This record gives sequence, structure tokens and C-alpha cells, in this order.
Amino acid sequence: MKELTSIKTVRLNTEKDALIILDQTRLPGNEVYLTLHTKEEIGEAIIHLKVRGAPAIGITGAYGLYICARRIQATGFDAFYEEFTEIKNYLLHTRPTAVNLGSALRKMDHVVLSNREEPVEEIKGLLYEEAEAIHAEDVLACHKIGEYGLTLLTPGMGILTHCNAGHLAVSEYGTALAPVYLGTEKGYNFHVFADETRPLLQGARLTAYELQRAGVDVTLICDSVAATVMQKGLVQAVLVGCDRVASNGDVANKVGTSALAVLANYYNIPFYVLGPSSTMDRQCPDGSAIIIEERKPEEVTELWYKERMAPKEVKVFNPAFDITPHSLITAIITNQGIHYPPYQFVAD
Amino acid sequence: MKELTSIKTVRLNTEKDALIILDQTRLPGNEVYLTLHTKEEIGEAIIHLKVRGAPAIGITGAYGLYICARRIQATGFDAFYEEFTEIKNYLLHTRPTAVNLGSALRKMDHVVLSNREEPVEEIKGLLYEEAEAIHAEDVLACHKIGEYGLTLLTPGMGILTHCNAGHLAVSEYGTALAPVYLGTEKGYNFHVFADETRPLLQGARLTAYELQRAGVDVTLICDSVAATVMQKGLVQAVLVGCDRVASNGDVANKVGTSALAVLANYYNIPFYVLGPSSTMDRQCPDGSAIIIEERKPEEVTELWYKERMAPKEVKVFNPAFDITPHSLITAIITNQGIHYPPYQFVAD
Repeated sequence: MKELTSIKTVRLNTEKDALIILDQTRLPGNEVYLTLHTKEEIGEAIIHLKVRGAPAIGITGAYGLYICARRIQATGFDAFYEEFTEIKNYLLHTRPTAVNLGSALRKMDHVVLSNREEPVEEIKGLLYEEAEAIHAEDVLACHKIGEYGLTLLTPGMGILTHCNAGHLAVSEYGTALAPVYLGTEKGYNFHVFADETRPLLQGARLTAYELQRAGVDVTLICDSVAATVMQKGLVQAVLVGCDRVASNGDVANKVGTSALAVLANYYNIPFYVLGPSSTMDRQCPDGSAIIIEERKPEEVTELWYKERMAPKEVKVFNPAFDITPHSLITAIITNQGIHYPPYQFVAD
Repeated sequence: MKELTSIKTVRLNTEKDALIILDQTRLPGNEVYLTLHTKEEIGEAIIHLKVRGAPAIGITGAYGLYICARRIQATGFDAFYEEFTEIKNYLLHTRPTAVNLGSALRKMDHVVLSNREEPVEEIKGLLYEEAEAIHAEDVLACHKIGEYGLTLLTPGMGILTHCNAGHLAVSEYGTALAPVYLGTEKGYNFHVFADETRPLLQGARLTAYELQRAGVDVTLICDSVAATVMQKGLVQAVLVGCDRVASNGDVANKVGTSALAVLANYYNIPFYVLGPSSTMDRQCPDGSAIIIEERKPEEVTELWYKERMAPKEVKVFNPAFDITPHSLITAIITNQGIHYPPYQFVAD
């Protein structure tokens, strides 16, 4: 695969006092890296999706909490912990749905509390190690997900994915795309259909971008074309990521995911959810207990992205219409009346 | 209802030598009317969706053929018919999927052929009458569709619609929206969810615009949010238009329609297709015989619409995520392995 690892979604700078993130709102047109120092800068980057993807947000939270905690002046534990907690809570409330941010911040909190007898400078060092561990754990998890996922796929398969749960969402392999990358390395020659994923177009801007860059065959489609490619038999598996999984298996993921699940079910296509085990929220009984973030209307109504929204020369499938099988139609209403199945419109 | 009929989608000018159309690619920001004289101008308006909606395209084809035929210099029938046929075929090939264009042009052709003994000037007059009749027939059909459709609805219902099959697609009432307008006049107080309808955003730009303008309660959603509003029980009926209906009831309509049908079926919501009986293609055995127009990739990848794409102050529902019920998930793949149903992620 080409060049994939030359893009770094989230990392510390060499002085370890700032976070460097790839501004994903500028892709695919521009690869712009931002250097973030304060909790406000980090929070703003999360809220405005400059960094996004459940695992990447978790890593950003951990590194971000570290670099902010590092600058706390207090040397006594209680004063340190008070400031630490304020930063942690600030970051925690930037996005509610994904589990990773909360769990990364909880792990960082645990490091502080379980080392309260240590000098504050020592605790700061342990926080750095914990953030690095969280990052490394995610990278390793993605490789594992790729290996397990690949056992469910065969060479030449058509694969549909939604939003971006790839390299840009976390690390080298991503989650939903991990089997695609691993398979590509092994010469599996997949054909990936990437939903553009309105309103923020992560599929068009990010998934099509990173797959094309890695040399994977990718075709961009509007979200509503997923039903068409399934109906045409072009898709043999659906792979999606997850932001939070309830203990009964209900999955919160980018809006549009549940529609794909219903469609895949109707067309008898396997529907796979991929994510690190840290995304399984064992405290959450079912999907109804998951808070769904509602975002501002302007994402839908305004031109928030001012440039071409997909990589150059990306393949696109853009049918203007589709065919709805008569078996799914309750009634057809014309000026001549209400027609119920079986339909038989015959020549007069 | 407010102001609805003050917008005229397609009409002849007072001299009856040009077609005046509302440029639907400029909505909702600008109400711009275009005056079209030549077949090339008319063809270009159809191809670039300045006029769109299956019935409106049919009416445009009929009026357009009339104004072009009117200028034919030939006085002998054969020479007249040769030029007439060239114009007719030119217009016929501008868009392939909708049945209305072809059937309107065929009706016009029939008028010419069955009056070949008449003077050419007489035939031109008959063509005008036929175009007016096609228009009037569609207006009447829409009222009838509204009356039949309304018998399937009850006050206060949540209604989901896709693309634009309303006033702008045809005449006063539209097709899919005819029962909504008729019901609104009777105080039914519907809550309409309008799919934005990528890539050309007819739902955001046109449906939300015309419903809002008519005082109907409308909420704009991204196409992939349809599953969410159904899952939440906010929708009791789906109303869509149609571009061509095969004799077995298979329906060609704006891409995304078939996904809604699968979703409605899964959520036990009635799925209604509404259109004039002229849209039933009795020669077409089933959906596989319908040609699906494929349009250029730039509609998906480029910013083709340069302004805010929805009317001001329109209500929007913009959830970032959705919940996929565990029953629809084939397997959940984590770094710990492949989990099959029944899922039970419990605390360690």
C-alpha cells in the first residue's frame, strides 16, 4: 500500500507540550496540520471535527489532558487534582456519543488517583505513559480487528462502508477499514463503495481520500445509492465502525448506519460492525440509553465546505433514479384511483 | 395555503412563441424565470434540471415542441413533418427515465399524423390545443391524486417524502404532495419530513421551499436520517412520486426511493407511490426494462450549488449518530474476536 502511514492523524510534538493534528475539515483538498496547546484549542478541534473518529477522539483526549496537566503549576496533589479534573471535565463534554473519549479520560484519571502519594512531577510522567499506552493499544487493536475481520472476507468482494472508520479515524489501519487494508496488502483486490455520508461528507472527503491514496479500488456514492449497489449485487459485505456498543449489541454509529443495516438485512448481505473492545460500553444496557448528539442545522443547510468535496479522479457511481420492487409498495395512487397489489397496469 | 400558485413552473408567454420556466437550479435563493425559444434552449433546460419533475418535463416537451413547430417555414405536410420529427426526437433524448416526456411527445406526434390532410397552419393550432390539453390533464390528475391519496391519511400524521414531487414538479398540487396540500387546506396539520435528496438536493431546495412557502410544517433531514425518523415513530406514511411505473408495479423514481421502501417495510409504515396514470408504462413488463439515467460525477464531487441550499429558517433534524438494533448485525468484530448473536458484552 502506498503512503498511508505518512499521514498522522494525532501526535505529540517533539517537546511533548503540544498536540499536532491533521485538520480533517480541510481534506481532501489540503493536508494542514494544527498545533494545539490549550484545552480550549483541543476542545474546539474536537467539537468542529478537525479531529474525528471515535478512537482518534479518545487519543486526542488522552494526549490533550496530558499536555494541559503538564502545565499545571500546583505542586500539592489536591490543588493539582482540582485543576486536572477541571480540564478533564471540559474535554469530556466536547462530544457525548462516542465511548472512547470518556474511557480514555477515565483511564487518565485513574492514573492520577492511584498515584496520589507520588510527587506531582512523577504523576505527570505517568500521564504521558498512559496516553502513549492508550494510543499503542488502539493501534494494536486495529491490527487485531483487521486480522479477525479479514477471515470473514474473500478476494474480489464488493464492500460497502459508511463515514470514515479508517486510518484517519485512528491509526495505521483504522477499524472498519482494517480488514480492507490488511486484505489489500495480501492482494485481495476489494472493490469498496464509500457512502459520501452527509452532512459532513466524511466518506467523500476522508474515506475515498485515504483508500484512493492507499491504492484501493474505491467508488464514491451518495448515501441513498447504497440500496442500488446492494440491489445490483455489487456488495457482499457491509463494514462499519462504531462509536458506542451497548451490552446487548445495539450500536451507535454515524447517522445512516442503521439504514444500511436494514438494507443489508433485506438483501441478505452480512452487516459487520468493527471496533476496539474499548468501544463496548458494558454499563449501557441497550441503544435507548445512548445519548445521540444533535448538531447544528447549518451543517445541512449551508455550504460549510468551500472546495471540491472528493479527491480528484475518484470513481463515482451517480444514477439519477432507482427501481423500487413492487413487493415493497403498499399502494400506487393515480388519478384513476388507489391500486393495491397485485399490480397489473395493462394496455387499455 | 399561502402564495403557492404565484409560482409558475412552466407556461407559455403571452405571444405563445416562447416558454417561460422557473429556473429550479436557482431555488431556494432566487426566483428566476427563463424565456426559452429554441429546441436547444429547451433541451439544455431539461438536461440541466432547470425544469425537472416528470410531469413538468412532459409539459415542457409538449409546449416546447409546439413553439418550435410553430416557427417551421414549410407549408407542405411532408417537409413540415420532417422538421417536426427532428425537433421531437431532439427533445425526446434529453432525459430517458421519466415516461411523461415520451408520452407527451407521442401525443403531439399523433395530432400531426392524424391531421395530415389539414393545412400546416391548422395543424400548428391543433398542436397548441394538444399542449394545453396535456397541461390541463396533468393539473386535473394532480387534484384527483390528492383526493384519492388523502383518503389514506389522517390529521396530524408524520409524512416522509423524497425529492420533489410537488407544485414545482407539475402544477398547483403536485403528485406525491397533492394529498399534503389538499389535507392542509382542510386543516389536517401534517408534519412533513423532507429528505434533502442528494446529489441535487431537490428536497432541500425545492420541497422544503414550496412546503414552507405554503405554510406546511416541514423538517429537512439528510437522506440517511429517514431511518432514524421512522425508528422514532415520527412517520406514519411515506409518499413519493414516480418517473415510470412498469406494468407489474415496479417503480422508477429518484435514487433513494427504493431504500425508503425497504425501510418502510421494515418499520411497517405504508409506502405510497403517487403519479398520474400517464406515468404507468403499460408496455414495460418490469423494472429491469427501465433505463436508469446515469449522470456526471461532478454532481457528487463538486460544489455545483453556490448558495445556501435550503430556505431560511427551515426546521432541520440533524442527529450525528443513529442506533442500529442488534438484531440486524451479523457479527461484531473487535480486537478480542468475532462476536455473533446473541450479544452480551458484560463487565469484566
